[in-house]
Amino acid sequence: MTTTVRTRVAIVGAGPAGLILSQLLADAGIDSIVVDSRSREQIESTIRAGILEQNTADLLRAIDPDTRVDTVGHRHDGIELRFGDEGQRIDFPSLVGRSVWLYPQHEVLKDLLALRLGRGQDLRFGVTVDGVEGGESEHPVVFASDARGEHLRIEAEFLVGADGSRSVVRGAVSGSRADGYFREYPFAWFGILCEAPPSSEELIYSNSGQGFALISQRSPTVQRMYYQCDPSADAAAPSDAEIWDTLQARVPGTTLNEGPIIQRDVLRFRSFVAQELRRGRVALVGDAAHTVPPTGAKGMNLAIADVVLLADALRALLVTGDERLIDSYAERALDRIWKAQHFSWWMTSMLHVTPDASDFDRRRQRGELRTVASSEAGRTYLAEGYTGWPLATDSV
Amino acid sequence: MTTTVRTRVAIVGAGPAGLILSQLLADAGIDSIVVDSRSREQIESTIRAGILEQNTADLLRAIDPDTRVDTVGHRHDGIELRFGDEGQRIDFPSLVGRSVWLYPQHEVLKDLLALRLGRGQDLRFGVTVDGVEGGESEHPVVFASDARGEHLRIEAEFLVGADGSRSVVRGAVSGSRADGYFREYPFAWFGILCEAPPSSEELIYSNSGQGFALISQRSPTVQRMYYQCDPSADAAAPSDAEIWDTLQARVPGTTLNEGPIIQRDVLRFRSFVAQELRRGRVALVGDAAHTVPPTGAKGMNLAIADVVLLADALRALLVTGDERLIDSYAERALDRIWKAQHFSWWMTSMLHVTPDASDFDRRRQRGELRTVASSEAGRTYLAEGYTGWPLATDSV
Repeated sequence: MTTTVRTRVAIVGAGPAGLILSQLLADAGIDSIVVDSRSREQIESTIRAGILEQNTADLLRAIDPDTRVDTVGHRHDGIELRFGDEGQRIDFPSLVGRSVWLYPQHEVLKDLLALRLGRGQDLRFGVTVDGVEGGESEHPVVFASDARGEHLRIEAEFLVGADGSRSVVRGAVSGSRADGYFREYPFAWFGILCEAPPSSEELIYSNSGQGFALISQRSPTVQRMYYQCDPSADAAAPSDAEIWDTLQARVPGTTLNEGPIIQRDVLRFRSFVAQELRRGRVALVGDAAHTVPPTGAKGMNLAIADVVLLADALRALLVTGDERLIDSYAERALDRIWKAQHFSWWMTSMLHVTPDASDFDRRRQRGELRTVASSEAGRTYLAEGYTGWPLATDSV
Repeated sequence: MTTTVRTRVAIVGAGPAGLILSQLLADAGIDSIVVDSRSREQIESTIRAGILEQNTADLLRAIDPDTRVDTVGHRHDGIELRFGDEGQRIDFPSLVGRSVWLYPQHEVLKDLLALRLGRGQDLRFGVTVDGVEGGESEHPVVFASDARGEHLRIEAEFLVGADGSRSVVRGAVSGSRADGYFREYPFAWFGILCEAPPSSEELIYSNSGQGFALISQRSPTVQRMYYQCDPSADAAAPSDAEIWDTLQARVPGTTLNEGPIIQRDVLRFRSFVAQELRRGRVALVGDAAHTVPPTGAKGMNLAIADVVLLADALRALLVTGDERLIDSYAERALDRIWKAQHFSWWMTSMLHVTPDASDFDRRRQRGELRTVASSEAGRTYLAEGYTGWPLATDSV
């Protein structure tokens, strides 16, 4: 049997984008329903990105009095750019007057789920979207089913695809689900979680002769580290000792604190932007609209920047009937998206060793790192992208 | 018959690098002989680069009271970065406190030849180097012949290869003449000289959907312009009208002043750095050591930066017998060379349309241009590279 529910905005995906959007809409008196194919436990336990731009942290504080971004999370005032034996700290506050926060995405999600459920949000886990209809009309409909096979029909005035890189909603906006702009990379990241004290106070982005490594943190007792690997690498293959040897060799000058490796994974990544971000009464946000390589730490932040724009547009559309902001949503979002795509590509290209890189390419890359690191303008340009450009504050 | 001449420094190549080096050495009381395979007329009439960094202009003023850099040359306080319908002026003085000078290389050479010949420099035109010996000893020897087939043997204490990208001296430093680091580009520049008033006061670097164009100037009545073309393009093939159509389409928003095209050429270019810049008593400077694509306007300036370092090193070696600066010459020169190689690659990559560029690449490139243009730090970073990093003022 099919249950029909009505709402003003149907949001597919209970990630940071979908949950924050539901809060911003609720603040404007607009009801929504959020569905996600995963269980709450899955959502809260998936290890993802960990760096929040200052604007993102500010937004979490503004919408959630109980956010733990300042208690569990940590403010980071810089990163280190390491290349060979050389290193340069990029000091964010002195360069751009901003900072970032190390606060893992699954912790953000715990906060947001508690916030939304505590405020009575209609939020349904384990609900898979089977199809979408009526996106071109004023009454889009979502057909879904839950884990027991019960069918759900959600009738809304607007539909938002916040359902990640394998978005089902994308098909209703962008024609074929695969339509868009792509770039593949000839490497992946081998990531670990380990039980050890931090090896450095701030993130180290290291370009070594053997390839890239990122020394990151998670908590006083658990750390996250990555090294560039072949995309076909088997996460189970290397021994712990081999992993530590690889990491250690790629951050000369730093002695890593080793400890039991409690999780290991291979992160393949690519750049992607959907052909269209909005058609009629359906719009995409976050990974459904675009994915970036993780080097620039832009993924979750870019999703939230989309949501801020879309929430403004939906308020105008659904409260006052003004279509201008929704009509310009895609163009305005794409301005930031392509800047973030460039930034993510740039950080990736500058720091990784491409398997087919010539000796010229490697020396040119080292020349670039030296130019950026030795110039206050270069460091500022990097810090602007890393800490995040200002969020659009649009009005008609 | 063979004539033997002795000197302290034998300089092969009467381009800007070789001539300036001879002046700096003369100022330190060190005699030199300069030979060049070309005639004086050929040297003075070859159309080459036209942008001098402020440091380069300052050096010309310091060594030559009669330089015309400020009378025939023009100070340029900025360039325009154009992309599609958007444009952004990069204002050098407000960003970095420096300017550049538009002063064509053949005019620089007229000044330098008059300077050196007026001061009695032993400067021989039409002399082709056949070989080099003894570079590992303290007495390198150059074997050369003049246009009449007369042989010349130059015995020196040091030999400098300032003989351009097809350097003969390079073989005595870098093993095989071709040893080094290369990058090819899948495009070239179609360049014209035309009789017309300037179309803009400053250079316009334009990334258009059809490809790159550079609107440059030469004098109030003659202009230099370029557009990206296929490396196999035939300079004679397009009609004047076709050339103007191509140029005009690539700088939307600017109406070019058209006029008779008095010279046309296809400039193929690549990036190159020699494997070694110095071995024993032989060193390379300028295009003999490295070539850059012309987009960053670095070629002549980088040559002169080499010369400043080498002159210091030769003073120390030949006046006081101190080998430390010559021993570190290559390492110190390479620091700037790889920064300039990166800058030239970056400007080239950011502004040209690669034939195999995907839609993602083109949009990413546009995102980069927007990020750089909209950020004071981005504009400053570009202006630092364009106007030139400070010249090294080394001492032991």
